[in-house]
Amino acid sequence: MNNLKEKKLLQNNALENLRQLVGNDLQKVDDIAYSLIKSKVDMVADIAKYTIAAGGKRIRPMLTIACSKMCDVKSDSYIDLATSVEFFHTATLLHDDVVDESFMRRGEATANDVWGNKESVLVGDYLLGKAFELMGSAKSLDVYKILSKASVVIAEGEVLQLIIVGDIECGIDKYLQVINSKTAALFAAACEIAPMMANSNKLHAKALKDFGANLGMAYQIIDDALDYQQLENNNIGKEIGDDFKERKITLPILLAYQNADDNQKKFWKRTINEGIQNSTDLQQAISYLNNPQINNAIKDYAINFASKAKSSLKIFPDSEYKTALTDLVDFVVFRNY
Amino acid sequence: MNNLKEKKLLQNNALENLRQLVGNDLQKVDDIAYSLIKSKVDMVADIAKYTIAAGGKRIRPMLTIACSKMCDVKSDSYIDLATSVEFFHTATLLHDDVVDESFMRRGEATANDVWGNKESVLVGDYLLGKAFELMGSAKSLDVYKILSKASVVIAEGEVLQLIIVGDIECGIDKYLQVINSKTAALFAAACEIAPMMANSNKLHAKALKDFGANLGMAYQIIDDALDYQQLENNNIGKEIGDDFKERKITLPILLAYQNADDNQKKFWKRTINEGIQNSTDLQQAISYLNNPQINNAIKDYAINFASKAKSSLKIFPDSEYKTALTDLVDFVVFRNY
Repeated sequence: MNNLKEKKLLQNNALENLRQLVGNDLQKVDDIAYSLIKSKVDMVADIAKYTIAAGGKRIRPMLTIACSKMCDVKSDSYIDLATSVEFFHTATLLHDDVVDESFMRRGEATANDVWGNKESVLVGDYLLGKAFELMGSAKSLDVYKILSKASVVIAEGEVLQLIIVGDIECGIDKYLQVINSKTAALFAAACEIAPMMANSNKLHAKALKDFGANLGMAYQIIDDALDYQQLENNNIGKEIGDDFKERKITLPILLAYQNADDNQKKFWKRTINEGIQNSTDLQQAISYLNNPQINNAIKDYAINFASKAKSSLKIFPDSEYKTALTDLVDFVVFRNY
Repeated sequence: MNNLKEKKLLQNNALENLRQLVGNDLQKVDDIAYSLIKSKVDMVADIAKYTIAAGGKRIRPMLTIACSKMCDVKSDSYIDLATSVEFFHTATLLHDDVVDESFMRRGEATANDVWGNKESVLVGDYLLGKAFELMGSAKSLDVYKILSKASVVIAEGEVLQLIIVGDIECGIDKYLQVINSKTAALFAAACEIAPMMANSNKLHAKALKDFGANLGMAYQIIDDALDYQQLENNNIGKEIGDDFKERKITLPILLAYQNADDNQKKFWKRTINEGIQNSTDLQQAISYLNNPQINNAIKDYAINFASKAKSSLKIFPDSEYKTALTDLVDFVVFRNY
């Protein structure tokens, strides 16, 4: 257990290492993001800035930066693309929070809570437009292609997630399809666009796309696991148990349901399928999920994708960026926030 | 009055004339639109197809087609761009109906009524992504620039419209700013992208941008007027009085308020500012608006923009497309649907 805690500490440092390595560029991303969010309509700028400020770890723009550096991109346009990727992500957060009816994210009230759903939908659209505008600086039709495709796939994934709400029997494949679309697609795009700007060979583009996709899968699997972690071990910043209350189908409850006895099956059917929940049900769910078999199975899924991500990096020559990206994979699996 | 009716008939024929002139290409737009809306997620395709089928006059893609023909665009990619423009428009309709809480559009239940708000938000995102994907076929960074800028401006306009809900004293300039952003921007972009594919000179691009923008202004002014027309004269297909119920600030009520006596001012303040409305208020509002002074002022605004639109076409050599576009301007002003 102490060993695991140390590993966690180590891997959290991996994120900080990456952040330091790309720190100057990441600061530029933030500067560009805030400077571009100007609008004749004050509220648009207010909501967009609020959501970006409340934004999280900046993993996606860091990926674009680190992959660009690893591919030795000469032009500065990767900074704009990293900002574009963050705008994309922020736009999807705004729409997600409306769709999920979430009022807290990373310990802050969501924009839909502060301003309203309508405003969040429209400012999400604004940021999507801004993301596409910013892409122009790369002057690459391939970049447009990759990111517009990603935005289509993300939306499909979000709809599928909505369709399977409450369907505890939908199966793990369906869950993997959802996270592949809603999360892995943007991680993949964030990485794949880097070699486009370096005129790298197609193998590099394919390798970074795979790297991003598998990293994204691992990331979302752990994200979904953290949603059921007791507060003391959890630093994710959003309300614990949101997924349970929203009857969202994620890996922990799918695994729990697979291994459930009749009584437990009844519990999951009532709370998730039928959506009948009382005040003690979340604690009950957490206690069912606090089971080594389930935790190991989740980790196995995450580690499997993480391993694939790491092997995609093999074709690149050694560099501090390659090392940082490799370490990031471990962070994603062993993080507690 | 009979004279006006004839004029209306004539101008409605102008729309049909344009539709016949670009009919083959417009059919291709529909074919491409439906063929591209494939998704592993059935509901995405269902909602997208439903919304496109319920779509209206297809004025925007017709503009792209007719302007491309007038500019003698050689490649076929203008068909894809016209489809992209219609996807854009459909995406904004989906989000608009969520924001406006509309349940009827053109006589049909809206997607948010049939499927739900969340689904409409996400399928709107899907169609926005599809619009950007389709743009790729033009292989023009300028086209991306124009349409991504338009998508930003549209969102800003929608937010501003939301901000001034109920503000009967906001002034006509604010209203014009809203429709310039939410409607004229896409009309302008739909026209401006045509010369981009013909490598026309910059004057042509500027002229068509201005043409589209002014046409869009006239179009929205009349659209907003039709929302208060008695059912017998109205063929717009959406519920009459939606704008009144939503306390949306449009030209008719701004003009009425400007010319109101104290009693009428109280009426507008109660129903629009305070949002206190009873079952007879819509009829009362319509009767206040059924006033030659107001109607003439609305027409003057529309005709002013229409005249500007027409003069923008002057630099183009005569052609059947130029004639059809000129006639379309009159249709937009004198239409009753």
